[in-house]
Parts: sequence; C-alpha cells; structure tokens
Amino acid sequence: MEDRELKQDDLKVESVGEPKIPSPLAVGSLGGDVEMASVRENRTVLFDTDRDTLLAAVRAGNEVPAFEMAGPRHKIFFDPARVKAAIVTCGGLCPGINNVIRTLVFELYYRYSVRSVLGIRYGYRGFIPKYGYEPIPLTPEDVKDIHEKGGSALSSSRGEQDSGEVVDFLQRKGISLLFAIGGDGTLRGALEIQREVKKRGLHIAVIGIPKTIDNDIAFVERTFGLETAFSVAAESIRSAHTEAIGAPNGIGIVKVMGRMSGYIAANAALALNEVNFCLIPEVPFELEGSFGLFALTEQRLRQRDHAVIIVAEGAGQEFVEDKTGKKDESGNVLLGDIGVFLKANLKKYFKEHTDLYVNIKYIDPSYMVRSVAANAHDAIYCIQLAQNAVHAGMAGKTGLIIGQWNGQFTHVPIALATSRRKVLSPEDPLWLSVLEATGQPVKIG
Amino acid sequence: MEDRELKQDDLKVESVGEPKIPSPLAVGSLGGDVEMASVRENRTVLFDTDRDTLLAAVRAGNEVPAFEMAGPRHKIFFDPARVKAAIVTCGGLCPGINNVIRTLVFELYYRYSVRSVLGIRYGYRGFIPKYGYEPIPLTPEDVKDIHEKGGSALSSSRGEQDSGEVVDFLQRKGISLLFAIGGDGTLRGALEIQREVKKRGLHIAVIGIPKTIDNDIAFVERTFGLETAFSVAAESIRSAHTEAIGAPNGIGIVKVMGRMSGYIAANAALALNEVNFCLIPEVPFELEGSFGLFALTEQRLRQRDHAVIIVAEGAGQEFVEDKTGKKDESGNVLLGDIGVFLKANLKKYFKEHTDLYVNIKYIDPSYMVRSVAANAHDAIYCIQLAQNAVHAGMAGKTGLIIGQWNGQFTHVPIALATSRRKVLSPEDPLWLSVLEATGQPVKIG
Amino acid sequence: MEDRELKQDDLKVESVGEPKIPSPLAVGSLGGDVEMASVRENRTVLFDTDRDTLLAAVRAGNEVPAFEMAGPRHKIFFDPARVKAAIVTCGGLCPGINNVIRTLVFELYYRYSVRSVLGIRYGYRGFIPKYGYEPIPLTPEDVKDIHEKGGSALSSSRGEQDSGEVVDFLQRKGISLLFAIGGDGTLRGALEIQREVKKRGLHIAVIGIPKTIDNDIAFVERTFGLETAFSVAAESIRSAHTEAIGAPNGIGIVKVMGRMSGYIAANAALALNEVNFCLIPEVPFELEGSFGLFALTEQRLRQRDHAVIIVAEGAGQEFVEDKTGKKDESGNVLLGDIGVFLKANLKKYFKEHTDLYVNIKYIDPSYMVRSVAANAHDAIYCIQLAQNAVHAGMAGKTGLIIGQWNGQFTHVPIALATSRRKVLSPEDPLWLSVLEATGQPVKIG
Amino acid sequence: MEDRELKQDDLKVESVGEPKIPSPLAVGSLGGDVEMASVRENRTVLFDTDRDTLLAAVRAGNEVPAFEMAGPRHKIFFDPARVKAAIVTCGGLCPGINNVIRTLVFELYYRYSVRSVLGIRYGYRGFIPKYGYEPIPLTPEDVKDIHEKGGSALSSSRGEQDSGEVVDFLQRKGISLLFAIGGDGTLRGALEIQREVKKRGLHIAVIGIPKTIDNDIAFVERTFGLETAFSVAAESIRSAHTEAIGAPNGIGIVKVMGRMSGYIAANAALALNEVNFCLIPEVPFELEGSFGLFALTEQRLRQRDHAVIIVAEGAGQEFVEDKTGKKDESGNVLLGDIGVFLKANLKKYFKEHTDLYVNIKYIDPSYMVRSVAANAHDAIYCIQLAQNAVHAGMAGKTGLIIGQWNGQFTHVPIALATSRRKVLSPEDPLWLSVLEATGQPVKIG
Repeated sequence: MEDRELKQDDLKVESVGEPKIPSPLAVGSLGGDVEMASVRENRTVLFDTDRDTLLAAVRAGNEVPAFEMAGPRHKIFFDPARVKAAIVTCGGLCPGINNVIRTLVFELYYRYSVRSVLGIRYGYRGFIPKYGYEPIPLTPEDVKDIHEKGGSALSSSRGEQDSGEVVDFLQRKGISLLFAIGGDGTLRGALEIQREVKKRGLHIAVIGIPKTIDNDIAFVERTFGLETAFSVAAESIRSAHTEAIGAPNGIGIVKVMGRMSGYIAANAALALNEVNFCLIPEVPFELEGSFGLFALTEQRLRQRDHAVIIVAEGAGQEFVEDKTGKKDESGNVLLGDIGVFLKANLKKYFKEHTDLYVNIKYIDPSYMVRSVAANAHDAIYCIQLAQNAVHAGMAGKTGLIIGQWNGQFTHVPIALATSRRKVLSPEDPLWLSVLEATGQPVKIG
Repeated sequence: MEDRELKQDDLKVESVGEPKIPSPLAVGSLGGDVEMASVRENRTVLFDTDRDTLLAAVRAGNEVPAFEMAGPRHKIFFDPARVKAAIVTCGGLCPGINNVIRTLVFELYYRYSVRSVLGIRYGYRGFIPKYGYEPIPLTPEDVKDIHEKGGSALSSSRGEQDSGEVVDFLQRKGISLLFAIGGDGTLRGALEIQREVKKRGLHIAVIGIPKTIDNDIAFVERTFGLETAFSVAAESIRSAHTEAIGAPNGIGIVKVMGRMSGYIAANAALALNEVNFCLIPEVPFELEGSFGLFALTEQRLRQRDHAVIIVAEGAGQEFVEDKTGKKDESGNVLLGDIGVFLKANLKKYFKEHTDLYVNIKYIDPSYMVRSVAANAHDAIYCIQLAQNAVHAGMAGKTGLIIGQWNGQFTHVPIALATSRRKVLSPEDPLWLSVLEATGQPVKIG
Repeated sequence: MEDRELKQDDLKVESVGEPKIPSPLAVGSLGGDVEMASVRENRTVLFDTDRDTLLAAVRAGNEVPAFEMAGPRHKIFFDPARVKAAIVTCGGLCPGINNVIRTLVFELYYRYSVRSVLGIRYGYRGFIPKYGYEPIPLTPEDVKDIHEKGGSALSSSRGEQDSGEVVDFLQRKGISLLFAIGGDGTLRGALEIQREVKKRGLHIAVIGIPKTIDNDIAFVERTFGLETAFSVAAESIRSAHTEAIGAPNGIGIVKVMGRMSGYIAANAALALNEVNFCLIPEVPFELEGSFGLFALTEQRLRQRDHAVIIVAEGAGQEFVEDKTGKKDESGNVLLGDIGVFLKANLKKYFKEHTDLYVNIKYIDPSYMVRSVAANAHDAIYCIQLAQNAVHAGMAGKTGLIIGQWNGQFTHVPIALATSRRKVLSPEDPLWLSVLEATGQPVKIG
Repeated sequence: MEDRELKQDDLKVESVGEPKIPSPLAVGSLGGDVEMASVRENRTVLFDTDRDTLLAAVRAGNEVPAFEMAGPRHKIFFDPARVKAAIVTCGGLCPGINNVIRTLVFELYYRYSVRSVLGIRYGYRGFIPKYGYEPIPLTPEDVKDIHEKGGSALSSSRGEQDSGEVVDFLQRKGISLLFAIGGDGTLRGALEIQREVKKRGLHIAVIGIPKTIDNDIAFVERTFGLETAFSVAAESIRSAHTEAIGAPNGIGIVKVMGRMSGYIAANAALALNEVNFCLIPEVPFELEGSFGLFALTEQRLRQRDHAVIIVAEGAGQEFVEDKTGKKDESGNVLLGDIGVFLKANLKKYFKEHTDLYVNIKYIDPSYMVRSVAANAHDAIYCIQLAQNAVHAGMAGKTGLIIGQWNGQFTHVPIALATSRRKVLSPEDPLWLSVLEATGQPVKIG
C-alpha cells in the first residue's frame, strides 16, 4: 500500500497527559529488572522500506513518515492502584476476541496490578442504560479458559451508540481506560468517544484493537483472526475440490467473507492450492465473452473435467447488487449474494450454451470461519496486540489502535486508520502469487 | 427396529457355486496357520437379542431369524490366479469410500493373490460404452495413499444404467467379482445386475458395500461415513452455538443431511450437546401454537437469550415440499429447503409477533460433512467391511451386502436390504437420549 | 469373549429398595408423555447371539444368560426433592470424563429435578478428611462448558481409600447416590463401599461408570475414551510412517497405552493402516530367529525401505520386566519400557548383524492420547452412559456399572466386571482384521 | 537482530550471467500482461527500519544496508525450452517441504514452461553414484497431491557429500538450475557446490530455500515449518496442562525442538498460554537457589497446585551435556536430554526437599511436530518461497536463498546466511511477550 501523501503528522499519537509514574514492568514486576532496551521508547517503524525511495526523500528534504513503535514504557500515566479499565467487543465475531480479552485482563492484573476491570456486555449497547445490560467484573479467574473458545465472552452487537451516553457511563463508573475491540465502525465510534472525552476534559484513554476478519483496516498490515479465517476457509476449498473431482464435470464454488477486501479469498486460494479462479472485490471480472469466467470455466472443464472457484462476498457486486441501498445494523450496504448467483448462472450457461452436464457444489462456510477459536498464529498475535494495548493505555496514550507494520507493533491514530479502507492491491506480491498459483489470467474478461 | 414378520428365508444368502478351493488365508498367506476358529463358518447373529422374546418363539416352535455371520471361509469358489474383480462407486460422496476401495484392492492382492482389479470410473456410467470412460487397473501402489483423502478415487455419478449393458461389460472384460459401493439406488442396481447374471447363467458374484451418509439402509445397524459425518456436523453446532451466544437473542440453525432418516442430526445433537431443538423426518413437529417450534424458541430466548436448532433436510417437508414431485438424477424427490424456510419464518415470527429482535445465523455444512476423509472410527469400519466383502465374494456368495448387526459383521441379501428404508424410531434409545439431552418435548406442537 | 460357565446369577443386579415413586420422566418432565415403550423395563440382552448355541442350550434345558437392559424406569426409588448425589473421578485421565460428569449433573438436575450434587475432588482422597479437599457443589451452570475439555474437572488421584471412611463421609453429607468414574481399581473400591453401605444397612446406591482407556473391563464391549484414544494414536502412526519413509531405511516405532489389553494398538493399526507389525500383550512374539521381529523387520526394509511398528506398553514384557515387582500408586506392577527397548535393540541388531544403517524414530504419545477432549463418538457414548447411570441410580439399583453388550446399554454387577480383565482374543475378528491389514504373520517368531 | 557491522557488500547477490530473455511472465503466460509494477526490479528492503538510525547514517554518509527484493524479473537468463532443473531435500523433516517441491515444479512447468525437472532422492546422497539412488522426473501430475502430506516426497538424508561429485552429476545430467531445500548444513553444502560450479566456469544457478524448524537461519525473519511446528507443540502444552491440573501437585513438562534457538518454545508458550516457565538456549537459568527453577516450581505448586514447563532441547545443556562431543550425521553435537533430566531432578527435588508428592508428566512431541503437513500459514509461505526461488533461478541469480525481511521476500547470499546462527535475543519483543505472558522472572536463578 503506497500512499505518497502521508504526512508524519497523520501518524502522531495523542496522549491524555504526561506519564510520570515508574512502570511496574521497569521496576521489576517480573521478578527482576526487565531488559528495558527492548522497550525502545523512541523507536519508530518506517512507513516505506525501499532504500532508494528513502534516500531520495532525505535528499529532497522531505518528510520520512514513520510509525511510533508500540511496547512498554518506562513511565506510565495511570496509577495502577486507582485506575479502572473497561473492555468492549463490537461487530461480528472473529477468531481471537477472547484471546484479546483474556490478555488484557491478565496483563492489567498481573503485570500492572490493576484490580478493577469491567467487561461491557453486547458491544456499545452495554454502555447504554436502556438496554439494561450490566457490566461484569473480569478477573484472571473469570477469563482463564476463554482463549480456547470462539466468539466473545462478552457477547457483541452491531451499531454505534451515542458517544455522550458512553462517556456518561465511563464517568459514572469511574473508568479511565477503555479498550474497544472492533472493526471500522467500532473504531469510528471509539474516535467519537475519545473526542467527547477530550471535549469534557477528562483523563480517559481510549485504545482500539482492530478486529476485522476482512483485514481491511488501513495502515495495519494484518488484523487478528485473518489467519484462522483463511485456514478454515481452506478446508472448504478442499471439500469443493473433492466434490468437483468426484462427479462428472464437477464445479466447486466457495464463497468467503470479504466485503471490500479479498484477503481471505486470496490467502485461502494459496493455503489450499486447488483453486482455478479466485475472485475478489478489488479485481473486476467479466462473465461473458471468450475470456469471461463462463468461457474460462468451460475451457477448464474440457481440459481437466473439474474446476474450483473461490469468491469473496464483495466480488462482482455489479452483477447482483440491490439498487435499493439497504443497510445492515452496522450501516454496511447489504450485498447481493454473488455465490448463489454464480452457482445459478454457471448452471444456466452450461445448460444453454454447451453440451456439458455440470455438477455444481456450492459451499458457504462463513459462520464456521469466523466463530472458531483462534489458531496458534492468531493466539500469539492477540496476546501481543493486547499486551501492547495495555502498555499504550497505561502510558496515557489515547485515540490509537495497536497495529503492525513491517513486522513491528505500532501505534496508529484511529483517525488515520479509519480515513480509508485497506484493499488488496492487484500489484501486491500476494495477488501476484495468487495469479501464479492459480494460473488464472490477470484479467478475466 | 422390530420386524415381527421377518422370516429366516429373507435372510438366506445366495451363491454362484460351491466353494471347493482351499482359502489362501486358511493355508497360511499370513505366514502361518490362521486361527480359523475366528472364521466361524456356521456362526449366526440373532436378529433379536431379548431373551424372553426368543424363548417364547422357541417354545412356540416359531422361527428364530438370524443373519449369516461374515468372515473368511475355509474354502473359496474363485481361483485367485484367474479371477478378475471390478469396483464401482456410485451416488453422492461419503467419507470412507477410498478406504473401502483401498482395502478391497489390498485384500484381493495381498491376502488372496488376485492380480487383476479394475476400477470403474464415474459410477455405473463407467460400464456403458457411450460415456467413453475407460476402467483403470488398480494395484496396491495405485491406491496406497487414497485413504487419507475424502471423495472417491474412482469418481462417482448418480443414476442407474441398463443392467444388460453392465453384464455385457462384465462378460467382455472377463470380470467375475463385482464390488458395488453405494446407497439404496446403487444396491437396487446391483440386484438387477445380479439377476441378469443369474438369467444368463454366469458365475459372477455381486457384492454390495452399503454407502449412505444418512444411515438409512435397512437391516444394517450403521453405514460407514456416518460417524465422520456427525463429527463434522457437530463442529457446525459449535459454530451455531458460538454465534447464538455472541449476539443479542441469537439463534443458530444448522441443517444437515438426512432425507428420510435423522441419524446425522440426532447423533450430532448428542456429539455437541448445545442443541435445544433437534428436528428429524421421523418425528413430526408443528410451527404454530403454544407448544409449536416458534413459541418454544421464543420461550427459550426469554429464558436463556439464545437457542440452537439442528434440522435434518427431510424434516418438516410438509412446510416446504414442492408439489410438482421433481426428482434428481438418482430418482430422489427434490426436497424443499427446510433450513432456509426456518430461518425466514423464525425471523418473520419474531418480527410480527414479539418485541424481540433476533439474530439468526444459518449454517449448511452439507458438502463439508460428506467430502472429508474418514475419521479413525470409519477408517476401521471400512477396512472391516471391505475385508468381509472380499471374503464373501471369493467364497462365491452373491447378491448380498456386508452389514453389521449386534456389533457383528453379517451377510444381508440385497433384496432384503432394499425392501424398505431404515428410519430412526422415536422409541429408539438414541432418540430418547436426544430428548433427555436437549430437553425438548416429546412432541413439538 | 466366550465364557461357557457364566451363570445368570452372576448377572443379577442388586437394589437398595423397591422403587415406588413414579419417575418424572414417565409423567412428563420432557413436556409430554415419554414413549415408555422405549424404557423396556424387562428387556434383556443375550450374552451370546449365535442361534445354534442358543437353541442347543434351550434344548438341553440350560440357562441362557442375559444382561438386564439399562434405561429409564417407570418407578424410581429415591425422592428427587431429597436425594443428594456425589460424583468422584479416579485413576488416570481418559477422554470423556468431563462429558460424563456434565451429563450426570444435567440429567439429575433437569430430568429428575435433583438439586444437590457434590463433586468430590482428587478421587477417593476427596472423601478422606486428612487430605483436606472440600467437595464442590455442581450445578448445570458450573459444568456447562467442561465437555469441551480433556481431563477431569474434579481432578483425580490414584489409589483406594478406606471404605469405612468413605461411607462415613457419605453419611455425614447425607449422600444417597454415588457415581464413581474409574477403572478396575476404582470399581473394586466402589464395590467395597457398596458392601460397607450394605453392612451398615444404608440406602445408598453406588453406580460405576467404567473408565479405562485400555478397554479392559470384562463384560463390557467398550469403554469410553477408547475411540478418542486410538484416533489420536493413529496420528502418531502417520508421523511414524512419514518419518520412516523420509529417511534411508527408516523405522517408525509408536508405543501406546495398553497394560494387559491391546485394543488401542489394534484399533490404531487399522485406523491408520500404515503399520507393518502390531505387538500386543495378548499375542506373544519373539525377537530372534528367522521369523522373529528383528528378521521380519530387516526383510521389510529390504523390500520396501521402511517399516512401522506399533507396540502396546504391556507387550513383550518378558524382555523388559523389572523382576523386583515394584508397583505404582494404583497397585499396578511397574512395566518395563518395551518401546525404548525395541528402539535400542533394533538399532543394535541392524548394526551388529546387517549392513543396513537404519534411522529409527520413536514416538510415545501416551499423555497426548489420554488428555484430549472426547471426540464426537465418545461424547455421545458418555452422554448415554451417564443418562443410564442416573436412571439406574434413581431407580435404586446399586453395585453395578453401566456397560454395553451387543450394542445395547446394560447393567453389569461390579463383582462380575471386576472378576477378571478383558483381553483381546487372538480369535477376535478385530485381531484377524489387524493380521489381514498389516500382513504380519499370525505368529512372530 | 541488530548487526551494526553489516556492509551492503555482504548483501550483494551473485549471478551466472546477464538475463537477456524476456520473461514469459512479462509477456503474458498468465493470459495477459502481468502487472510488472509488482515485480519491482530495483526495489530493496532496508535492513533497519528505525527512522532515527537511518537518518543518522545518511547524515554521517554511512551505508544504509538493504536486501535485494525477490520477485519475478522482466528478463531471465535461462532459456525455458532448454533448461533442466533439479530439486533436493536434505536434513530432518519439516512441515512444508512437499509444498515447496510442488510449487517449484508447478511454477517451472506452468509459468516458465520448463519441462524437465529432476527430483533427487535421499538428500545429497542422491547425487552420489555409490548410493545407487536414481533421480526421478517430476511433473505437475506427479506432485499435485503431495502438499497435503508431511515429510518429503523425495525423502531426505543427513550429511554433506563431496561437492565435486555433485557438480559432476549436474554436468552429466545437464542440469543448470539446482534448488536445495535444507538447513544450515545443507546451505553450506550448496555454497560449496556453487563455488565448485564457479571454479569450473559453469552456468549453473544454485538457489537455496532455508528449511529449519528451529528458525535459526541468520538474516531470515522466519523459516517455513515454524508456524506448523509451534501450532502442534501447543497441543502438547494443552495436554501437559490438562495432566497437571488433573492430579495432585501435577507438573507437566514439554520438550520441543530448538538446538540453539528457542523460537518453537517461545511461540508455543504464547500460542497456548498455560505455561509458567519457558526455558530456551538463549537465556541461561539456574536450578538451585531461592530463585532457581526448583524453588520457583515449588512456589507455583503451593500457590496454584500445578505447573507447566516448556523447554527447548538446547536449553540448560550445561546440566546434561555429553563432554565427549559426539556428533550426529549432520555434524551437530549430540545434546543431552534436558527434558528427561528435568523430569528426574524435579522429582528428586520434591522428594528430598519438600513434603509435596508431585505427579510429573513428561511429553516429547518432537517427531509429531515436524512430520505433519504444513498448516495454512506455512502452505502459503512455501508457495511464495518457491515461486521466488524459481524467479531468482530463472533470472540467473545464484548462491542465494529466498528470505523474508520486514515482511518482504528477499535475496540473501548463502555466504551471509551461513555466517552465523540466528538466535532469539532476550531483548526481542517476542521474548518480552513470553515473560509477560508466563509471568516468569527475567532471570531464573
């Protein structure tokens, strides 16, 4: 993702006040003097890692944007003995939510000796009195086993709530550290909350942990849950392939999540490399014509007797979109079902235009993909995100999310992260790998 | 399954001729003298195992029906040096098909020294010249790794073919041992073939290995693939449950296979005991009324905030059936989609009749359930079925399938096995276990 | 397992008193009239299912032994409103313990409205004051998630405790229903407890649920956990095979549990059919000589470049046994390590007697096999065992375990079940399947 | 990993000649004009990504070292119609070897139309006539299913062979592209081969794909198989934890691979965050004393009744090392068994110094960890490594491995990669995460 106009100012992180309290980590909550060299207070992570680009910028006297590196700080802002924290999980399920919750609680409790953590039930609704959800206290004992489960131990809901009411709640309960786990909408909500906090002149830090199975948060290399998601989606590809080769002229179609970004589809197509066509929102395709999907599928069947297609839910929306613009509770435009459409129209094509009787098997593993427990990769990533979120929060930083860039954990201002959606560029090496591994043409149609 | 009118004659197994050749197993292909005690040439398996019932029958001078026990015989009919075998797989995929194929080949090759085995491609179509599928020779080297994969290494197809043409093929190729792996339709086809063979006075044995993920073959306790199927289906229940508890008033619905028999649904409901309502074809239910599914689901939500429903595809067909009676290629009536129906109508019910805004997540794992490789349980069962199929075939028995009864492997005449469909009796201890484990009422509605 | 001298009297089940209270199940705790036909109060399960054997016995006027069938009864002995139950888990871990605990609690609570259930901590020690373990109350809320985990939610310990002290505890706490989950030693302990109860003239029912990963409880077809165990063990065979084919002259050795019974080894050898030699305690083998294990392994390497061996821990003990007769806490003789022995001695053999440089990879998956959560098969089986245990206990039956015979759930007197150990007969069809599937000689050596 | 003395010259990649042939990828083997923007011929990947460090270097006029970015090139050196490639796999098994082999073959065949690829059997031995292993031709059909399996489809062996003999083989067979998949020893071997090639003035490119489950290749962020390895190792931690909480004073010990690097142990400890002490080669620890492992374990047991320890095989070697300096076939010093040592000595400690009777369960999952098939993460990584290896080789680059740095694929000279071993720095954020997540002191002892 290139963004030539990125300014260093966009990467600047806000703070609720100056950290003056020595961190318990620095003075040895781990039973000795932590190697504070690893804390890297002033380390940064360059946005662009190409040498020539860098040198050119330096020579031209231009800014060289870099993210603030995440990690524990020598001094913290909040007094552990007095601070109260709250955790909220919003939006759709995603593998790893419970791992994040668990580590937030463990890190606050064991590393910073914070004794008061509240779990907010059912997303932002849990802040709003009219819904009647009581927050629940969270101790290590309460959360010690939740990492083995999918879903959210706090439950979730879609949709934002009035930021004024949320801040009322925070004030009423004396909360000064809010961790919001959620996607684009949730983070926008968190930003509103942070702005309201600021307007009221409160010392409340708002830290986001980006959660989107679609991996579509800008300025963040990857979001937790993605790895688990494409691992499970890959199982569906195996099924689709098995079905496709098991019947005469078999076609297996798998639809996966990915409203605007094709990361799950692209990764799954590599993870189980039995896919012939991978269709994602970022790369338009045609159905008709000699190089359209129908003709290419026919050609594949004539050569190899079977074909496997994976399609992201947001791909090819021009063929299925509902012009009425209906939206779901999170404010997302309702998508037409490209998977069901492809199944019906491939069948129609072969019946009307060819002599091939095709066997189409359509698999939609969506809920199974997102409701499982985090795999080992995501389990680790979630621990690291949550540890860094606690470090940032305790240090008094606010209005940021924990991201990753060039393999390093970073602080990314929420305003920047929500300023656009990340998509998979057709020039990304990942997409080129998909093209090479599937053999599908650069342009279908 | 009680069947008071079962006659011993119905259980009688046919044969293509008298076995006169000493079995290689008996004379030591295993490097020594096999414990032929285990062969149990004349052992039987009683149909009914209740003592009082049996004693009453004996005292009344009635027949006490029993199956012939399967297993190796001291003498065989076919000369291993000359016999040619063929294997065909028909109908939908089912976990374990490849395990059966592999063991058939291994057992014929290594234990009986049969050197010529043909794999018929794409089901019964592979016998019919017009389709142009050439059979492929099968050696242990060819099949040694296939047990780790789902699907069928021979591919499959639906529908019967003319039994005359099939027998023409068998004669043309000099095949005298046919193993047909398939469900009810396939077995009817095998019976036709066996009858045609008999009419022509040929010495060709036809042995069926019942394959139906629905477990609906009569006089057979269980069919291979069922265990794998409900194991995978249980994962979907976990997802449905996780989704249901993850959102306000969450309802998870899982639809599994089971056209006329609810075995997958019932077993899955026990295997992951988070189900509140299990709906199967054998037990009618109502939607409306104070004790109907809608009201019970509402009651559950009000008490526990979430609900999980598993439904077999053949359940509640009166609500969705297509009156036109359309059939698929196997001659099965096309079913209406009860899963989609329930999703839509539960949503409608809650919107129109209650103040609850429900979050319904619908999961249809069907192809993922049937296309996976056999689990350990089915892997063992498939080996045993295939070993016994080879024993039966080499001994010259014909027109039978390998079944299991009271935990023992049996010979079941195809005519008997296809005379009706097995269903899950509401009086079966399995169903009572489901009622106890779900807490659902005996009668919904 | 044949046992010609079995008397019907051995199968007779004891009772603490006459059941007079109508069962809540019979009068509709499931929201309607349960199909009591399925309860089968007087149904039995014949010990032997061979027709000729049966008819001969009848004609000779001999007894025809049969087990009492398990299941709910129309009348129960204990008053649900007053009864207190206790659950204890003893011995080594086994997949499914938590499933049994959970269903015991659910069934008692929801189906019989029993409100008081105690969990005894750390096995029989939990009854003995000096250890200081307090029992914990168990409600459905406490146990609702434990079935997803391996181990025992109550923890376990080895060794028996004084039955007098145990009964003191039961009296002190007012417990009249004791469920003991454990193996041979535990069941002997339970029998002692039941006898002490009887001696004191108390109305306390003692119900055992046999738990042994080795499947070595007599008169019980299979014990829970076995299926999960051999499924996991099969994974080790895959590893051993992969390693064996990955290096020149590779030999993979897997050691599995099975002190006196080879069920895990035999089933695993079928479940992943890549095993060349399966060694179990019931079938002696030689190492030396032209037909000994060493020579056969060499022959296999020369033919196929690799070999896979699975060995039960109790096999070949004559080669490794410790003559001192040391025992573990459960009173089991300490076994020598046949796996480590085979690894060392195969290496020595090839070095000293051949020109082959072998690569031996030894895998001991024991704890991984027994500590995992129950798979779908065992999850179902555990539910059924526990439901039937509750039915038996509430009906006032005592001194029995819930078993399975000919596929039906049965009541088996503990005295009978502990009168001998079950072993895998070399004439059992399962062992013949192993011989056929591995190709190993009937006699090694 | 900081390395202040790294020179740009160390990062310079060699080449067998100037690429002059237009790449088939550039001219459309993918059915259109590939987005060559993604090829980034001249892109680099900065070694260090901290802005201040870089700006300081630039201002001081120092070098700013950067890796050459991997990827397809516009022009290639070898003529696809004439080039012959060979693939060899050496050393111990590692998840993903087959995925690399498969993609090498696929990429050469389908993307570059290279028709001749040889698989070398049993590692470097396969080049040496005296071993008598014939190379096998590899086509897509041969390798299409191998990615679903662990191990190496070509088999492997340890130890180097004479580079002169290897180059003789390459010349004899007309091979000009050699792909060597292996660890440190293998890569040193490859470097020898490349030097011999150069000495003889041949146009043979030698490309390495680093394979080490220990992740200990310098200048490469991660090696394939690591993710799968710690995922599987994490399962052992679950078992160890379950066993530990299942018995009085339970201690679970897991030993994992990692001779000099603790990556598997550290990652596994995070992936299943139930570990109390993670012991790695890079961080010394003491056994005795108030802050030694024994005392800390005792303290843990007294507080929580159970403890879980994970230890890398190379940790604490001072306690167990064999002073004789024996080596294995790959020339690695034979390690003492720290896992078995800890088990025995913890037992001894508790027996001799405390009143606690401990239950220690020791798990060594090593072969199971390394012999499984690649998980989804590694499957993707292997595809990308292999694609880039083919791109580099076809472009005539040589003496390099495909690495990854800051998330980008890179070319790393073998001489540099084998100049040292990568270890996990105690200052690495990963290790700090482990300390925070386990709560173990920075210094044990």
